[in-house]
Amino acid sequence: MARAHWGCCPWLVLFCAYAWSHPIPGDLAREDVRNCSTSPPYLPVTAVNTTVRLTALRQQIQAWNLSAYIIPDTDAHMSEYIGRHDERRAWITGFTGTAGIAVVTLRKAAVWTDSRYWTQAERQMDCNWELHKEVGITPIVTWLLAEIPSGESVGFDPFLFSIDSWESYDQALQGSNRQLVSITDNLVDLVWGSERPPVPSQPIYALQEAFTGSTWQEKVSGIRSQMQMHSEAPTAVLLSALDETAWLFNLRSSDIPYNPFFYSYTLLTDSFIRLFVNKSRFSSETLQYLNSSCTDPLCVQLEDYSEVRGSVKDYALGDVKIWIGTSYTTYGLYEVIPEEKLVADTYSPVMVTKAVKNSKEQALLKASHVRDAVAVIRYLVWLEKNVPKGTVDEFSGAELVDKFRGEEEFSSGPSFQTISASGLNAALAHYSPTKELHRKLSSDEMYLLDSGGQYWDGTTDITRTVHWGTPSAFQKEAYTRVLMGNIDLSRLIFPAATSGRMVEAFARRALWEVGLNYGHGTGHGIGNFLCVHEWPVGFQSNNIAMAKGMFTSIEPGYYQDGEFGIRLEDVALVVEAKTKYPGTYLTFEVVSFVPYDRNLIDVSLLSPEQLQYLNHYYQTIREKVAPELQSRQMLEELAWLQQHTEPLSARAPHSTSLASVLLAATLAFLSWNS
Amino acid sequence: MARAHWGCCPWLVLFCAYAWSHPIPGDLAREDVRNCSTSPPYLPVTAVNTTVRLTALRQQIQAWNLSAYIIPDTDAHMSEYIGRHDERRAWITGFTGTAGIAVVTLRKAAVWTDSRYWTQAERQMDCNWELHKEVGITPIVTWLLAEIPSGESVGFDPFLFSIDSWESYDQALQGSNRQLVSITDNLVDLVWGSERPPVPSQPIYALQEAFTGSTWQEKVSGIRSQMQMHSEAPTAVLLSALDETAWLFNLRSSDIPYNPFFYSYTLLTDSFIRLFVNKSRFSSETLQYLNSSCTDPLCVQLEDYSEVRGSVKDYALGDVKIWIGTSYTTYGLYEVIPEEKLVADTYSPVMVTKAVKNSKEQALLKASHVRDAVAVIRYLVWLEKNVPKGTVDEFSGAELVDKFRGEEEFSSGPSFQTISASGLNAALAHYSPTKELHRKLSSDEMYLLDSGGQYWDGTTDITRTVHWGTPSAFQKEAYTRVLMGNIDLSRLIFPAATSGRMVEAFARRALWEVGLNYGHGTGHGIGNFLCVHEWPVGFQSNNIAMAKGMFTSIEPGYYQDGEFGIRLEDVALVVEAKTKYPGTYLTFEVVSFVPYDRNLIDVSLLSPEQLQYLNHYYQTIREKVAPELQSRQMLEELAWLQQHTEPLSARAPHSTSLASVLLAATLAFLSWNS
Repeated sequence: MARAHWGCCPWLVLFCAYAWSHPIPGDLAREDVRNCSTSPPYLPVTAVNTTVRLTALRQQIQAWNLSAYIIPDTDAHMSEYIGRHDERRAWITGFTGTAGIAVVTLRKAAVWTDSRYWTQAERQMDCNWELHKEVGITPIVTWLLAEIPSGESVGFDPFLFSIDSWESYDQALQGSNRQLVSITDNLVDLVWGSERPPVPSQPIYALQEAFTGSTWQEKVSGIRSQMQMHSEAPTAVLLSALDETAWLFNLRSSDIPYNPFFYSYTLLTDSFIRLFVNKSRFSSETLQYLNSSCTDPLCVQLEDYSEVRGSVKDYALGDVKIWIGTSYTTYGLYEVIPEEKLVADTYSPVMVTKAVKNSKEQALLKASHVRDAVAVIRYLVWLEKNVPKGTVDEFSGAELVDKFRGEEEFSSGPSFQTISASGLNAALAHYSPTKELHRKLSSDEMYLLDSGGQYWDGTTDITRTVHWGTPSAFQKEAYTRVLMGNIDLSRLIFPAATSGRMVEAFARRALWEVGLNYGHGTGHGIGNFLCVHEWPVGFQSNNIAMAKGMFTSIEPGYYQDGEFGIRLEDVALVVEAKTKYPGTYLTFEVVSFVPYDRNLIDVSLLSPEQLQYLNHYYQTIREKVAPELQSRQMLEELAWLQQHTEPLSARAPHSTSLASVLLAATLAFLSWNS
Repeated sequence: MARAHWGCCPWLVLFCAYAWSHPIPGDLAREDVRNCSTSPPYLPVTAVNTTVRLTALRQQIQAWNLSAYIIPDTDAHMSEYIGRHDERRAWITGFTGTAGIAVVTLRKAAVWTDSRYWTQAERQMDCNWELHKEVGITPIVTWLLAEIPSGESVGFDPFLFSIDSWESYDQALQGSNRQLVSITDNLVDLVWGSERPPVPSQPIYALQEAFTGSTWQEKVSGIRSQMQMHSEAPTAVLLSALDETAWLFNLRSSDIPYNPFFYSYTLLTDSFIRLFVNKSRFSSETLQYLNSSCTDPLCVQLEDYSEVRGSVKDYALGDVKIWIGTSYTTYGLYEVIPEEKLVADTYSPVMVTKAVKNSKEQALLKASHVRDAVAVIRYLVWLEKNVPKGTVDEFSGAELVDKFRGEEEFSSGPSFQTISASGLNAALAHYSPTKELHRKLSSDEMYLLDSGGQYWDGTTDITRTVHWGTPSAFQKEAYTRVLMGNIDLSRLIFPAATSGRMVEAFARRALWEVGLNYGHGTGHGIGNFLCVHEWPVGFQSNNIAMAKGMFTSIEPGYYQDGEFGIRLEDVALVVEAKTKYPGTYLTFEVVSFVPYDRNLIDVSLLSPEQLQYLNHYYQTIREKVAPELQSRQMLEELAWLQQHTEPLSARAPHSTSLASVLLAATLAFLSWNS
């Protein structure tokens, strides 16, 4: 699944280990679901009648001489979020969950999805559909082998298959005498017809120079230099991920929810640049900005989005080598490039270059985080006053923080669906409240807010967990240990080019010490008005090594099933560390500027170094945010900020309370002298 | 190289990143070397005349219709150390370094080796040989492509190629119209003739029951259960690594230096056991012990060592599936098993099972470490008295510690070549003194001893670094930070099944903090009278996850080029941790029992937790070793032990707070003095 949704998708990977093992929220489990074992079957009002759609799709399947057709949940760019016109799996099944693969044969129809979505699928699907409570390609292929006879064929849209997923299906079917058939006409689209939401057509615009780190011409030259230096001497770079093309040309639009992208591909060679896109979406100024009326090496030749496959295929006829990022290029492009003409790296040079922000990009991203902190602080101040009244719920809260962000300068909406979760809901991975399903905020329970904004200068992502009443001792300990993990990783000094996976355990040690842990990853990259979950930076095994200028989130957590959830997430810039002895060492500079909840910090657990770090961070928050609040006359927020960033001091002897000291001393006495 | 030498070889991997970047020791660089550019060439007396050998080998190459022949530096079991009769590369080239690959064509002869061996190669090789100062398969293939014409063939002995190295050569030569030809008759052996040292023939003996964790029948049943539970339903397990067969049958011999193994393979199925070995090496008691005269499932059928390939090939004709560990099975066996009949895991079930010691094996290994500590302590006491006299050198020191170990009960010699390195020599990877080349020990410089023993009950490995005079502030800081890393990793609590690579940075953090680091791995598994570097346990990316019952070394270090080297290595058992909240967590229990050098510890750098841990460890050393010294009337050593394990206390304020110092002092006081 992680591979299927690729662009901007580390979040899915981050959470997957956690998500699979988690129960359904109580509220959702009580839902009205279908019962296909009665006669007639019972269908809730939320179920969608798919009989007509399926009949039409089966006609297509027969017309193409197939026995089955696979319908994944992604788009042609392996995007994290997909546009409505790409929601083919949702339309054909009725099931709108973001993860799930459908397969239709002439007799049967089935969906595979993970535990987060089982109830939702039972509410939304009619009895045409089997629900398989499994994930991965193996169970799908096992089912296919049982359902379709030897000698027959399984169709798929190669633009909806990553190279890896194609290889997995292909390998699993090998020797079975069933053929995988790549069909570039999407059969669901053929059936969907006029009901299908239109492909976006709003303008694609160039970012103002104030919001870009380099001109597109400088970026193109940089990538061309990398082509020249590559040992396999690629003659072209093919860009498939939407943020690659958006970054390269400093162009943005709004085709995908939460992501300022537009459907596009780029083929960049030493002698030409081809941008595959709906040309009618450019203004004459933007066409001029792109030098689109010439064919020199620094002119952008526009070709229609649909031409990409043919154009790459033609180009591949020459004496060429095409450099691709295999993690997110689809089989639809891969299959038209002969093996010996591929330069296959996990990530394209654009993906890797984009990960390291230059000084202007760093300044832009930091500035957006200062304004973002203002929005979050406004919300926290407002909550502090209003939650005790009992008038706030998760959904209205999410709407309000989105509104506050929207009021900030350069705002372009949220960077992902706000996670606003109270009490037990915060222990659920991927939880977001809806207008219909949400929980009231209360001084009696913890509240977790994971949210972020898109701004012209940067993308933000921050999580804070708060409690307005009296937290339990366990909640305070868990919160403090999550904070200790955040601090330990944030203040770590490590050699240049260290992989994130080598150091992410520092974010867990304080929890591990007492037998606690969290089941998701520890962080992900982030862009300048691009992806909120930007590859390939982070702390997982498929992330690249840390380098100066990268931004990553640092977000340990703790989740107590059925009770509460804690996550403390900051965005941090990778900077050079000054060490006593010379050497190239790195550390993090946190650029999220919202204080943690004092009510939940047990200062006695913090080491002197952690406490010192925390107070220094609070000082930085004051320096960055207070002037902003002052200049806007937000005096209530300013007072709140001062109060919440007061230096903390050890109330009890370091590392433990007096009780623990006595306990430790007694234990030592007993163990040594008995 | 790491892949070529497989069995017991993590040490090579551990050090390789470090080794390649290191300079030659001053002493060695001054050596007399060949000069092939003069006429006649200058050859030192140490050079070996290889003209006759090469002529004979080239006749063989021609006789087999080849143009080139590759001679690796390993044996048919990918062993870490190889027997003398397997030193083919050394014999044909004259160069006796342990790493290096030779290739002979009809016109040329060349050796590829790494920087550690360049001088040695120039001293030992005559001008028949080119020296290539590179490693890896790519430069060898590049050279081959230039030297041999298209259409011709390159021969190799498939028993000296791992599957991986065969694949690398094969892939690199693909499309080049040069053929790789597998020839099971080793061409060097054909030429070596009667000069070749004989294949070992000393007895192979069964371990006394007191020294085994389970009977071989129990082990066989356990492996058969794993075969039944495996999803791919293997019908047989094929064992190639020498420690696999030695462990399975509780048999030992001494075919390989430092390793109590014997040349063998095992093919284990549900219905029979075939042990490929020189049968004449068994006594009648051992034959009986193995039930070698029957053919039931619990009878060991003996076949000649040389029969293995044919026997596996015949077995593979049936409806079977053969389970192998791909990391150390050679191409010689791999190529006779059809792809679809292979169950290919990185490690065989024997390798993985062997890694987890049962309670008896744990007790045995621990007991051997207590006696080993006595030997090391005797040596340290002796050094303290004799180094100031100026009569000790690295080589005589190494001989003495080996002798002291030899005097311990159940001793079976050293477990690897003792690293006894003074001053700047300790900064060199793989340094060992020789009778001819060594340095005097002195109170003015640091001394590093990395050594271990083979005992019937266990294998040991420990490194201590000492200074008898006045260390510099930098030496003390570096030493203390290495110690802090050792402690931080040793006391870490982590979830069950965590990979070593996720946590090894805890051994580096204290060094990183000030801009220091070390270039080797952090630890490796160890066996019960088996490999001192036992796969697949450790802290590297190719090690398996940590589990209760595994033993690993923990060995951070610091190396200052041209000045000194520090390494502090202990062996630790993975045990369950008791955590405040329930959960399956692990930690380490150190089973090496020699105190660190007080003269080199800057207590003020230690955190209260580190200090407490250290004092607790010292208390354990006293409890384990003092009774042993007492019972042997080693009163001088006993006094030394008491003195060197006196509780340490913070002499200066701990890096930040007075409170922490007081806490530590209180704890120490309570623990030791009440």
